[in-house]
Formats: sequence, C-alpha cells, structure tokens
Amino acid sequence: MAVQTVASTSTPTVDLGPAAALSCRECGHRVSLGPVFACEECFGPLEIAYDFSAYDTEELRARIEAGPANIWRYAPLLPVPAGVADKPNINPGWTKLVKADNLARELGVTGGLFVKDDSGNPTHSFKDRVVAQALEAARAFGFTTLSCSSTGNLAGAVGAAAARAGFRSCVFIPHDLEQGKIVMAAVYGGELVGIEGNYDDVNRFCSELIGDPAGEGWGFVNVNLRPYYAEGSKTLAYEICEQLGWRLPDQIVIPIASGSQLTKIDKGLKELIELGLVEDRPYKIFGAQAEGCSPVSAAFKAGHDVVRPQKPDTIAKSLAIGNPADGPYVLDIARRTGGAVEDVTDEEVVDAIRLLARTEGIFAETAGGVTVGVTRKLVKAGVLDPTKTTVVLNTGDGLKTLDAVAGTGLTATIRPTLDSFREAGLA
Amino acid sequence: MAVQTVASTSTPTVDLGPAAALSCRECGHRVSLGPVFACEECFGPLEIAYDFSAYDTEELRARIEAGPANIWRYAPLLPVPAGVADKPNINPGWTKLVKADNLARELGVTGGLFVKDDSGNPTHSFKDRVVAQALEAARAFGFTTLSCSSTGNLAGAVGAAAARAGFRSCVFIPHDLEQGKIVMAAVYGGELVGIEGNYDDVNRFCSELIGDPAGEGWGFVNVNLRPYYAEGSKTLAYEICEQLGWRLPDQIVIPIASGSQLTKIDKGLKELIELGLVEDRPYKIFGAQAEGCSPVSAAFKAGHDVVRPQKPDTIAKSLAIGNPADGPYVLDIARRTGGAVEDVTDEEVVDAIRLLARTEGIFAETAGGVTVGVTRKLVKAGVLDPTKTTVVLNTGDGLKTLDAVAGTGLTATIRPTLDSFREAGLA
Repeated sequence: MAVQTVASTSTPTVDLGPAAALSCRECGHRVSLGPVFACEECFGPLEIAYDFSAYDTEELRARIEAGPANIWRYAPLLPVPAGVADKPNINPGWTKLVKADNLARELGVTGGLFVKDDSGNPTHSFKDRVVAQALEAARAFGFTTLSCSSTGNLAGAVGAAAARAGFRSCVFIPHDLEQGKIVMAAVYGGELVGIEGNYDDVNRFCSELIGDPAGEGWGFVNVNLRPYYAEGSKTLAYEICEQLGWRLPDQIVIPIASGSQLTKIDKGLKELIELGLVEDRPYKIFGAQAEGCSPVSAAFKAGHDVVRPQKPDTIAKSLAIGNPADGPYVLDIARRTGGAVEDVTDEEVVDAIRLLARTEGIFAETAGGVTVGVTRKLVKAGVLDPTKTTVVLNTGDGLKTLDAVAGTGLTATIRPTLDSFREAGLA
Repeated sequence: MAVQTVASTSTPTVDLGPAAALSCRECGHRVSLGPVFACEECFGPLEIAYDFSAYDTEELRARIEAGPANIWRYAPLLPVPAGVADKPNINPGWTKLVKADNLARELGVTGGLFVKDDSGNPTHSFKDRVVAQALEAARAFGFTTLSCSSTGNLAGAVGAAAARAGFRSCVFIPHDLEQGKIVMAAVYGGELVGIEGNYDDVNRFCSELIGDPAGEGWGFVNVNLRPYYAEGSKTLAYEICEQLGWRLPDQIVIPIASGSQLTKIDKGLKELIELGLVEDRPYKIFGAQAEGCSPVSAAFKAGHDVVRPQKPDTIAKSLAIGNPADGPYVLDIARRTGGAVEDVTDEEVVDAIRLLARTEGIFAETAGGVTVGVTRKLVKAGVLDPTKTTVVLNTGDGLKTLDAVAGTGLTATIRPTLDSFREAGLA
C-alpha cells in the first residue's frame, strides 16, 4: 500500500475493531481508516472516531475484567481487531498503580496519592503502549517495516515490538548519540541508522522518506501511523480508573513532550464517562514540563492560546520537544478541567527522582522526576488540592537516565571489621 | 529480638500463615519459626515446613485466581500472614510468560517454548521475589533494618523494598564496584557501605556482624532470613504452571548461582502436585551455568555428588558463585528428574542475549544469556526434547549489564538525504 500524507476515500476497509473512521480534530471531516495523519480539507490532525453504540455497560465491564493483564483487556475501546491478544506483540500495560503513602506524607497529600508506574512495561517506558498500538495498525495496512525517528525510549520500544511480531524495523537516530543509548536501541537486531545531523535533520529526512517510493511499505509509528499510535495512551486512563475500582481520580499529573499523551488520557477519561464505566464527575488535569523545555507551561502562565517554540536545554530529554504539536490542546484541557501546567528546574527534577526512590522504591526516569517535582511544587503553591485523590505518572525507568543521579554514591567506606563499622556510626 | 545462628525452641510464635515450623533439610529436625538458618543438631540448612492440610483443591485454585496480579496471589502457599497484600511491600511477580515462537523456530523446538521474563519485576530482576518474602519475615520478627551483601541485583531489590516498607536498609558492597552499579543501589537512599576488600571479605564481615550485638534488629535477607527469602523462588513455579493453564511444563531451564532458585522451583512444582493443582506427571529440570563459573555443571558431567569450588571468571556476574551452597541438591534434582546441568562460554552468552532480543524483543541480563545459550546447546545435543513444552527463565534485565553487548552499534550511517539512503541499500 502506497503511503499517503492526507486521507482519501479510496482506502480499502480494514478491521480495526470499533474504529469507524478517521476524523479531523479541527474541522471534523471524516475519512476511511488508512495510514494518513493530516486532514485533506484543513491539514488538521486526524484521530480515531469509534462506534461504541453496541456496548452494554455491565457486559463491557465484565469483558474487560476477564481480559488479559495487558492493554488488550481494553481491545473493545481501541483501534484493534477482536483477536488482538493472540497476535504476536509486546503486550504492554496493566502496570502497577502504587499507593504512595510515604511520598504522600512527605508532600502533605492526605486524599490518597498514587504513582502510575509505567517503568514496568516490557522496554520500561510508556512508549510500549503506543508502539504496540501502531504495530496492530501496521499489520492491518499490510506494512512490513516498522520505523521511527528517536533519541531513546521510542527506539527500544519499536525494536522490541518489531522483533516479537516478525516485522523488519528501521530506526533513525542522530549518528553521535551516546554509546549506551545506541546499544539499548541496537540490541533488538533491526536496522539502526545514524543520520549525520541533529534530531531535526533526522525528522526532516523521515518526512521526506514517507513521501518517497523508497518508503513504501513502511509504517512510521509516530508519523503515518500517528492516529493509531496516539490512542495507546488512552490505556493509561482506563487502567488508572479500573485500578481505582472504576473511579475517576480527582487530579492527574502528566508529563508533556508533544502533549499527545495528556490529550489522549483526557479522551480516555471522557470515553469511560460516556460509556457509564465511571461516574460522571469533575476531574482536573495537570501538565508537567522541565523549565529547560517549557513552552506549554510558559503559554499557560501567560494566558496564551498558542505555544511559542523553545530550544530545549534540560536533562529531561524524553520530554525535550521545543515545538509540541498538541500544545494548544493541552492548554485547552488544563483550563477546561481547572488544572494547570507547571515546570521545574533540572535540580528539582533530580531531587524528585531521589525523593520518589527514597519514599517508594521507584527509580524513575527524568520524566518521572518532572511529574513528581511538579506535583510537589503545585501542592506547595496550593494549586493541587492535597485532600483529593491524585495520580502522578512515571513514564520511564531510571536505568535509562543514570547520568541524572550520577552523583549518588556510598554513604560510608569501612574496613571489614566490627570496629570500623562502629567507628562509622552505623550500629 | 536477638539474632541467633541456630534455632532454639524458645522463639516466640509468629503469624506467617501456613508456615508451621523450620525443618532441617539434612536431618529433618524441626524448630519453631525464627530468624535462624542452620540446624542446631547437624548444622544443615533449615527450610520452611508448611501445614497445607486444610486446603480444598478447587477452593484454593479459585482463591489464587481471584488474588492480586503479584506473588501474594499465592499467599496461602507462602510463609506470610493472610493480609500480606495490604502491607507496604514491593509486590513483585506475575511477570509475563512469553510464548517464544520465533526463538522456538531458531532452536528447532516444536513442542512450545516459553520465556518466563522476570525483568518485568519492580527492580527488574527475580531478586524482588525473594526480598519481598524476606521483608515479610523481617516484619514478623520485629526487625527494623533490612540488609545484605551484594554486587548488583540484590542491592537494588533490598533498597527498593525497604524504602517502600519504611525499613532502614544497609547494604554492603565491595568499595570499588563500578560507578553505575553504585548509583543503581544508592538511589533508594538507604545506607550503602563500601567495604575495603573483595566480595569474600564483604561476606565474612556480614557473618561477623550477625553474631554481634551491633547487628541486633538486623534482617540479612540471605543469611538469618534465608529460609524465608528462599521461598520466594517457589512463586516462579506457581506462576509458570498457572500461566500454562494449571499444567506442568515438561522441561524447565533454570540458571544456577547458589542453586537455591532451582531447588525451590522444584519444591514449588512438587507442592502443586501434592495439592492437586496440577496433574502428577514427570518433569525435567535443567541447570544452566557460565563456563567461567561452572562448578555444578562440572560435577554433573563428572558424575560427582559433591561440588568442587571454582574461582569465578565470567561476564555472568549475577551467577558467579564459585562455591554454591545448594550445589549438591541441584545435582540430585537434575538427576532425579532426568534433567541435566550444562554450561556455555561467555561468547555464547552474548550470542544468546542477542538471539533472544532479535527473536522476541526481550533484552536479558547475562544470566538470561546463560539459560538461552544452554537451551540452544542442549537442544542441539539432543538432551532437551524439542517436541516437549519447555520453559526458559530470564531472571534479569539487559539494562543492568549493558557492557556485555557493548559492541552492538549502528547498522549504517548516512547523510540525511534519500540518495544517501538508497546508496546504503536500505530501501
């Protein structure tokens, strides 16, 4: 199947379960399901439109609860065929929702604080959710190569999922990435192509490849498969509510890179309300950025509707998108729900990584330091209500960003004797 | 409570669920539950004796299936109190049993090949299972400090679990460990004490500390809490059988460090048979070592009953125990079940890590390279039957042993142009 940039009505019908069509988020124009991401009318972003009309609430709840311990328990709400759980895929999700009582005490939160810990995914980041979803779309469209541009988590998620599913993978990265990151991406044995240039050059090249016959049969998970890929983030909303006993949290703190994850979590919560799976009551969504890449936070504070791009300079590299595509939608959701968008310094990020590890035994990636740091800041400022149920996302694993806490070391060095032990005051 | 090396009958009664007593594996002498690990009669190792007499098979199965998605679903079969799932702990387990069809094709296994992937645990190794168990024993005995000697996975598991449960932790390591390993162990904020000496010096010091008043109130997870700690490995057997649909696998390949894990998996399988939860039919247990530390494999091949210590020299550091305490028991189990013990070179370990990543998208620690490498070798040799259901354990995560595959790199470097892309033969 040839790759298209905009939708046409000639796309053949595919079985992606309840997904009925692609719909433009700007103008509402609908087209058939296909490997397209921009509206032919207005060039707005396309997203999945579903037909959930046949579902009975209690039957649906029972079906979900009887499903597998991964994102496919929500297959009835995702753009995937009915038998998805039996196809070879990385099967992420159903990660732990940790009741973080020690952290709550430190932050002064009394209404219940939870960490949704996505470091438990197969390649230890939330990217497994979106890639698993994109893989099913790629399969439906007859693609044989899974691809992306990446500087980290996404490369590993694409490499692993492609390996499991028997796809070829071809991941593009800047050629001068750190050796450790190259190893993590290369170990799955797909093509790993270094591009002589920076990350912008890599992205520009990928866009060119998608429009070229050389890219035929290629599914770029976050470009021509983006509408499907992005839906993977809805599963975070579903899991949080089901793990709370089919209850909406009052407040959720979500990291912002492109902003897609935050908008899809909001979409997922709204779907659960519409389907009657949770009670319809208000919830507040909070966005978290690092100060060194805080275009959405800056716009929120300035009262702007548009997001002014920034040149990223932060240790939170998995969030370092200076021109976030979904920024305006994030602003809208934060304002509509009564939430906020806030940022923290790199120093606060590191402090928050240590705080989470020390209180809950969870070693988070820098992105997790951002959400925990922002949570602390917003509680102190009285913006987050400490008496309400609050969920904080940790989207990645500290083992991938060891440099952030490289200063952490031995608390004492002693000779192997009890005298030395006592002298060090350890008894 | 004072720390004791051998059991006495004066230990107060504690509630550890179905655990009835400690029983000597050598002479069968029984003593009350307490923080002891060696028999007062013969100095043999103590292990938990259970009272399972009250269980009805179908009620027990239903109770397990309705339990949480972690090891506490098996609380009725573990030395833990009934309400364990509600206490603060790291809650490991219920990790994925991956049907490894691609790997099976490469190895020529037709009877069903599965990887039990324990990299999905909270700190990404099977050590979370045993530490979670030791933590509950520590709580029952009134200890307030959790401790161990370690060079890697165990340090992280103890640090994380202690943090979550509100225990003090104090981990002893050789002072000159690699900085990355120190960071992974230190981030949880407990005491991390470097000992001027090698790993043997660290262990010797810990044994001294346990016998000294300075060690009062300290639970050393793999010393004075060892009988409880070791039981955590039984949960691997339970999960494998439940995930196979309450069915025994025909063959299991298990890594050998001290040998404890292998003996406890065998114990777990036997319990499931006795309880009627699985059909009573033969299974074979295979042990896997790295050639550079293969004392059990050497004894197996030589037909010996005793294990001659070796000085370890292998990249599989998490298995590098030259004098494995449970070696003789491992030999007995491998022979009794019709299994075997085999070893592979470091080069084969690295090849096997790559093979597993390339075929199944699972990035294993060196220990996983050992089990997959041994599986490949045993199939080739006709020792493992390729027509039988086979389970291979991956007990750790590749992110912790990146050095093993450090040579992995870019498959191509190109300029950001389609011409350069075509020249590289990537189209």
